[in-house]
Amino acid sequence: MAVRVDVEFAAKDAYRAVKRGDLIIAVDALRCSSSIVNALANGVNAVIPTETLKEAYRLREQHPDFLLVGERKGCKLKSFDLGNSPLEFVREVVDGKTVIMTTTSGTRALVRCRRAEHVLVGAFLNAGAVAKKAVEIAQRNKVDVSFVLAGEKGLFSLEDFLCAGAIASKFPAGTFDFSDEALAAVLGFERVKGALSEYVRKSRHARHLTELGFERDIEFSCMLKHFEIVPVYRDGKITLMQ
Amino acid sequence: MAVRVDVEFAAKDAYRAVKRGDLIIAVDALRCSSSIVNALANGVNAVIPTETLKEAYRLREQHPDFLLVGERKGCKLKSFDLGNSPLEFVREVVDGKTVIMTTTSGTRALVRCRRAEHVLVGAFLNAGAVAKKAVEIAQRNKVDVSFVLAGEKGLFSLEDFLCAGAIASKFPAGTFDFSDEALAAVLGFERVKGALSEYVRKSRHARHLTELGFERDIEFSCMLKHFEIVPVYRDGKITLMQ
Repeated sequence: MAVRVDVEFAAKDAYRAVKRGDLIIAVDALRCSSSIVNALANGVNAVIPTETLKEAYRLREQHPDFLLVGERKGCKLKSFDLGNSPLEFVREVVDGKTVIMTTTSGTRALVRCRRAEHVLVGAFLNAGAVAKKAVEIAQRNKVDVSFVLAGEKGLFSLEDFLCAGAIASKFPAGTFDFSDEALAAVLGFERVKGALSEYVRKSRHARHLTELGFERDIEFSCMLKHFEIVPVYRDGKITLMQ
Repeated sequence: MAVRVDVEFAAKDAYRAVKRGDLIIAVDALRCSSSIVNALANGVNAVIPTETLKEAYRLREQHPDFLLVGERKGCKLKSFDLGNSPLEFVREVVDGKTVIMTTTSGTRALVRCRRAEHVLVGAFLNAGAVAKKAVEIAQRNKVDVSFVLAGEKGLFSLEDFLCAGAIASKFPAGTFDFSDEALAAVLGFERVKGALSEYVRKSRHARHLTELGFERDIEFSCMLKHFEIVPVYRDGKITLMQ
């Protein structure tokens, strides 16, 4: 049987992917996934995603050496060390650190996937690497693949749809059985891949980020295949897949 | 304010479009919408969509001169005059008739939209005509536009997604505010428009129809802009927009 590739357009439906026992690729291209990828690329040991602020603060109290990062309504909170801009995760600041991260949509989507055995974090930045690893694991373990899109406030988002398409388009042709959602995502990505950031900027969330002054984050997050990095979420922590 | 263009991917969410007061374009490209378009093109007076078989039978009892058409699990029922194949609606059979239609997904989606003031029926066959009319009505009445996709059993379907994109891609650029869903649909359509039926055939529902022997229906339903026909659903009946 061919490996099935599916997409849950809304994070609230993550439970379906978990229930199916699928390998999950969690996607929040703007910006949580991109921040996680860049954080690990710059020497972060582990990212601990939390759904609530309360939990993030509690963890920080227990571990004063951890960095507290993330956003609400797009912006860094006053007591946080960093916001949710991938560009803030520079080596001088984050190398060797453990990071507690809480964001409006991305970390929430991740936490919803925590009971799945295999959860990878996908962004445009690591599309090629995460696709390769997902294919390996799915074929070796004979499990299907589901993308879980964080979206904005749990709604469908263009950038995450295109990002799922970017990753799925790297799956070797013929050996995978794509759902209608996955086929649509690949088609969307194929349409825009020559001018990715131009189209991503049209999305609701990108327009919001632009209003907040985060235009450079969008440009950075749209760099395809920039990193050979596969973040894996297991036992409550996101680390580099060895 | 620009007219907003949105897409409800699943028929179960039709109520949201109704609640917003939007002009609705109901889409079930394979095959209900295409059958309705071809039926009206071949002289049918009116199509009465029903959600249940029971209702369809009751109507037929009251009006023995009406044709009873549609499908369950893709196939014509024994007591029906015609199935749900657009190609069955030839002039010799349907000219001057009123048709009671009940299908698994398409008529159900339509009935869910019945409380909306403006409901048009969209297919690839009439993409250009329905786009033009929707734009006219939306601008004149200052209402937003929502596509409601019938899908297969209420699920997202590739063919309806592409069909919404085909129609929305005809909206004049710049004067409409596209949701992320609408942007995605347009991108998908733009990717496949040169070989539409080739891609539509990959969808779950098209594969099912192919197994049932309805390949010609898929080819026919994928003919873009074939008809200058706009079916409008009002007071329980679908008729040609005058």
